[in-house]
Amino acid sequence: MLTDRIDTDRIERRLEDLWEIGRTDGGGVTRLAYTQEEERAIEYVVDELDDDVTVRTDSIGNVFATREPDAEQSFFVGSHLDSVYNGGKLDGTLGVLTALEAIETVEQVDETPPAPPTLAIFRCEESSRFGQHTVGSRGALGLLTVEEFSAVDEQNVPLWQAIQQAGFQPENLSEPTIDLDRVGAFLELHIEQGRVLDETDNDLGLVSSIRAPVRYHVTVEGDEDHSGATPMTMRRDAVTAASEMILSVERIGREAHDDGDVVATVGDVTAHDGAINKVCGSVSFPIDVRSNDVDFRDRVEEDVLADLEDVATRRDVSLETELLDRSDPVELDGRMIESLDGIAESMDASHRVMASGGGHDAMNFQHVGVPTGMVFVPSIDGISHNPKEETTTDAIAAGTELLARAILEGPPSA
Amino acid sequence: MLTDRIDTDRIERRLEDLWEIGRTDGGGVTRLAYTQEEERAIEYVVDELDDDVTVRTDSIGNVFATREPDAEQSFFVGSHLDSVYNGGKLDGTLGVLTALEAIETVEQVDETPPAPPTLAIFRCEESSRFGQHTVGSRGALGLLTVEEFSAVDEQNVPLWQAIQQAGFQPENLSEPTIDLDRVGAFLELHIEQGRVLDETDNDLGLVSSIRAPVRYHVTVEGDEDHSGATPMTMRRDAVTAASEMILSVERIGREAHDDGDVVATVGDVTAHDGAINKVCGSVSFPIDVRSNDVDFRDRVEEDVLADLEDVATRRDVSLETELLDRSDPVELDGRMIESLDGIAESMDASHRVMASGGGHDAMNFQHVGVPTGMVFVPSIDGISHNPKEETTTDAIAAGTELLARAILEGPPSA
Repeated sequence: MLTDRIDTDRIERRLEDLWEIGRTDGGGVTRLAYTQEEERAIEYVVDELDDDVTVRTDSIGNVFATREPDAEQSFFVGSHLDSVYNGGKLDGTLGVLTALEAIETVEQVDETPPAPPTLAIFRCEESSRFGQHTVGSRGALGLLTVEEFSAVDEQNVPLWQAIQQAGFQPENLSEPTIDLDRVGAFLELHIEQGRVLDETDNDLGLVSSIRAPVRYHVTVEGDEDHSGATPMTMRRDAVTAASEMILSVERIGREAHDDGDVVATVGDVTAHDGAINKVCGSVSFPIDVRSNDVDFRDRVEEDVLADLEDVATRRDVSLETELLDRSDPVELDGRMIESLDGIAESMDASHRVMASGGGHDAMNFQHVGVPTGMVFVPSIDGISHNPKEETTTDAIAAGTELLARAILEGPPSA
Repeated sequence: MLTDRIDTDRIERRLEDLWEIGRTDGGGVTRLAYTQEEERAIEYVVDELDDDVTVRTDSIGNVFATREPDAEQSFFVGSHLDSVYNGGKLDGTLGVLTALEAIETVEQVDETPPAPPTLAIFRCEESSRFGQHTVGSRGALGLLTVEEFSAVDEQNVPLWQAIQQAGFQPENLSEPTIDLDRVGAFLELHIEQGRVLDETDNDLGLVSSIRAPVRYHVTVEGDEDHSGATPMTMRRDAVTAASEMILSVERIGREAHDDGDVVATVGDVTAHDGAINKVCGSVSFPIDVRSNDVDFRDRVEEDVLADLEDVATRRDVSLETELLDRSDPVELDGRMIESLDGIAESMDASHRVMASGGGHDAMNFQHVGVPTGMVFVPSIDGISHNPKEETTTDAIAAGTELLARAILEGPPSA
């Protein structure tokens, strides 16, 4: 039986080994994009491959490993090995190791998959170093721009230079580094990074769509005054005005949540020159509204901005809203979702179809038309990008089995 | 006429001269307590005095200057010359210079004041250097404690050492440095530091009482989560919980404002590890509630704390409230207020009786039983502790005249 061949101990041993590469004092991992640590992590995985596997590294450092490099169609499975600053051991890494385990399992059974699998390891998925996410997968698919290549890290090293220093030489940016006609499907397993699976007691999440944000930086300006000497009626208080706006964002997000897919968040707030003995005159905060439905998100955005204006007018404070980001949500391949759902049913694994809150390498494959699926395993207590990142062994086993069975079922027929 | 003898040009020339001592690039003044700058400012004022004035410096550096050191009773008038970091030219300094001008004016007219005036210059009124306010006047009145003397500045220099380094040797802390039986009254002029006089078009404020704060440091803890991946219904958001609490403080302060003297303020807010892509798990903010009526303030404080608990319970976040300060309001001498009010009426000066929002040297004199009054002049746009601090020449003239006439009227009869 296929399940007997899935070796979760091996996955966990490899997780432990990779955890050592870039390990921080607090038990976390700092393995930034295009560093020695990312390189060593890739070498570790490549060393685990059998000798008859062909390993190709593309012009920006992504690795593609397969036994059948000349097959007409291949089923791509994988994720990334770079991390955020002081991140956890699972983010990205678990996707690579479950893909490897699934491929190794498939090769031990008698069935022949319709399209032989390729293990994919993408560079620089996290934006921590250069402020640019999913660089490797976008580069592989010809989606990067020269502008993005010029993004710099904290030491002012541009992305293109870091890639060169790591030993690679990107060529034509708009040209994919892989033959897309050969990619029958792409499948990525990842930790959820939210608390939905954990709170609803599901081992697996089948991602239907990837939410994308519209983001603003908001600045509210009132009057700075003496807290003891300024009557309540003579204030133009930026802290209370911002507080009312922040509650508007939440209320609109909650109300809209009943009618569609949306989350609306203020995750930070800064009182400029604030002090206990002042009425504060200037506050800023970011807004992040995400949905898998761009029209619905547009309506929520419109409501939020109108409410902010109302609050500003009523409180006689000035309001500035600067658009930071407007990205498009991605619907993953319906046939892939259906197929994964059927497999999960047959496995009797607890699962649900759900949206992804964050971006992943998978969305870029769907974007260029590759039938793409994503599988989530629970983040215990929703914790991610944190040394305390955890999931369950049961979920790892179920996720690996789902990947293996999906490979055996093959890419959706065109 | 007395008004003809008040020389506002002289006051303004002296203001300009003192402005040069500790002047900052941005046009402000940094003249911290017990520094060379404070010393030089005091020397400047002493140099302006006539030769027949007796100048006494007490054991912590306060200066008392009078023509009649042996009079049975004296009418004390004055303020301070130290400043906050990058403060304005008026705070404290205007009180010293209008007192000096008032005394010089009184000495030119034919009337003899019932109690000859003493010019008082107090050290270290501002808490900017040592976190301790009104050190000089408290020291003069025997109100300082050993603990307060141990407060340190940013370079870890204790207050007692700074006083010694400035050339003074405090002795018995609980012993006043002045003979209180000889102090018939104390009167201080100061800029308002609020916007009440400016917005109500009054030249003079007659201070009835000095508000005192009760202060808290509040910490709200929820869950840190991924902003894109965490449904609105699964959040324990510290930013929105804190925002609701901050609006409670404002609402309660506004409602109570109709029934009594109170201001309630959140002048700062900090989102710990906040970010655009997170639901933030930890927020802290200070609360400052001030009133001139301690019972009324107690009720407001109780309402605020109860509301904070309600919000925390409803939102399932944890709440910690740490008491930072609980000071007693001071009622100034009713006879002094009445007398000042009568003089202002007779001068036909626009004026109102009002509470002071901040603490001043004057409150310490009232605290030990000296009949004490305070006079405010407008802060244009409410600006204080800022290089842009301004008032009007008319208000300076009216304030100086009020001081002079009060000296001529003499201390309230016992």
